[in-house]
Amino acid sequence: MNPRHIARCAQIAMILEVSATPKPGNVDRDHDFPDVTYGHFLVSAIGVGPVFERAAMSNDKVGSLIKEAVEESTKWNGGRNTHFGTFLLVMPLIMAAGRGDVCAVNEIMQKTTAEDAIEFYKAFKCVDVCLGSVDDLSVDDATSTNEIGRRGLTLYDIMQISAERDGIAQEWVRDFSRTFAGARMLAEKVKEMSTNDAIVYTYLTLLAEQPDALVQKKFGSSVAKEVSRKASTVLKEQSIDAVRRFDDELIRKRINPGTTADIIAASLFVHLLEEHDEIA
Amino acid sequence: MNPRHIARCAQIAMILEVSATPKPGNVDRDHDFPDVTYGHFLVSAIGVGPVFERAAMSNDKVGSLIKEAVEESTKWNGGRNTHFGTFLLVMPLIMAAGRGDVCAVNEIMQKTTAEDAIEFYKAFKCVDVCLGSVDDLSVDDATSTNEIGRRGLTLYDIMQISAERDGIAQEWVRDFSRTFAGARMLAEKVKEMSTNDAIVYTYLTLLAEQPDALVQKKFGSSVAKEVSRKASTVLKEQSIDAVRRFDDELIRKRINPGTTADIIAASLFVHLLEEHDEIA
Repeated sequence: MNPRHIARCAQIAMILEVSATPKPGNVDRDHDFPDVTYGHFLVSAIGVGPVFERAAMSNDKVGSLIKEAVEESTKWNGGRNTHFGTFLLVMPLIMAAGRGDVCAVNEIMQKTTAEDAIEFYKAFKCVDVCLGSVDDLSVDDATSTNEIGRRGLTLYDIMQISAERDGIAQEWVRDFSRTFAGARMLAEKVKEMSTNDAIVYTYLTLLAEQPDALVQKKFGSSVAKEVSRKASTVLKEQSIDAVRRFDDELIRKRINPGTTADIIAASLFVHLLEEHDEIA
Repeated sequence: MNPRHIARCAQIAMILEVSATPKPGNVDRDHDFPDVTYGHFLVSAIGVGPVFERAAMSNDKVGSLIKEAVEESTKWNGGRNTHFGTFLLVMPLIMAAGRGDVCAVNEIMQKTTAEDAIEFYKAFKCVDVCLGSVDDLSVDDATSTNEIGRRGLTLYDIMQISAERDGIAQEWVRDFSRTFAGARMLAEKVKEMSTNDAIVYTYLTLLAEQPDALVQKKFGSSVAKEVSRKASTVLKEQSIDAVRRFDDELIRKRINPGTTADIIAASLFVHLLEEHDEIA
């Protein structure tokens, strides 16, 4: 598949994800956060195009490609963290798509190196990411990268260590199972509703199925579980007003299920790769 | 300037233009038309990236570059006309920027050929454009392209013939004066308001200054003048509620000042070329 086509599918996935509304708790076309706006997400998605194109032609160096995407994104959006989690998910998927089969993403992850891990750690320094430390390796600690080299940890190893409490890392070590499930859900839903609504309801379904990892880190496990329980209730009501009320509540409490939004962006990318006609 | 940087500035200009709200009468992040949605504009802006990059490296063939942009845009948005007028404006500007000076756009236009005119006519066939015929040359008539060749008319000649009733053609033959004025206005306004509001008020100012050519073609001269008079009144009120009421009225009457929106997109491009930090 053409690298430019793959890159544009990934960019459109990011644009459609952030535009879909109401997407409870997150930035969307009608909701800015005080420090990060809808516009910052849009310019980031446009800005990273050339890095995505290079990724679609690359067999390795996923760590430095993630770092380059973060650098490019922050160059255009004034240093905000808009897509860190999304880049972690879509970058190996873009590389797998470039090799001819997005489903073979596991091959990309398995062959990561310690250099990938070190480059990934450097990417943290560009933005304020809520991920915390990996075991005794702190992202704030300059000696961490030396420690990674010394212990020969690959980026995949880092993801394995983090998988228990990080929803993105979990995707890496579980073959992107939620990402692909989201893609299948989107493909079904767009047959009976608008793309916007298909994104909103797929997002709610993923959120109902599993507590959001970012919410868990910021607010603790019981709040994350309660958010998922409410997502489940809202889904049963099948009313856009109920979705809006849920959105208002999360926005008021500043609870943003950002990991679920990242996974939806990756699901959209997989979905768009297969059918890009009439996607808006 | 780097062709990739130039292309992304043009894409971001298109994305910011369509996202700005309320932009009276036009598609924005809160308003879809029945047949063309906000999403169709977004995917078109992402889709044309590679054509813009080629344009930023090209010294000639503006006609076929416009045709390629229309083809690429419609491939991604299901055949809608989202950006025909915008492409006519930004393409020579992108080429001039690629040569080092966006203000020297006149050089690009002056050296267009009959082949450019023929390619431009072919672009019409991709989408439903409200432009009408140029003198005795009809865009619906297959013999028009032969006639252009026979008479040796360049694309610039076509624009000169059309300038009296077409606002885009007028920009071509008047050195993009409204586009550059809009860029200067944006640069001033972003110092004191959000980018969104700067776009909205620059749009209203351009609309107040000159009746919109698309409105004139669709609804006649007196309606176009009345819309401009109202834009002027709304500007004096300096109230976002007044802008919203004006938007509601135009949307209800399906009056869309599309030429003014196209010029704003081109103004944003010129503005972004110079300062792309903190643009969202």
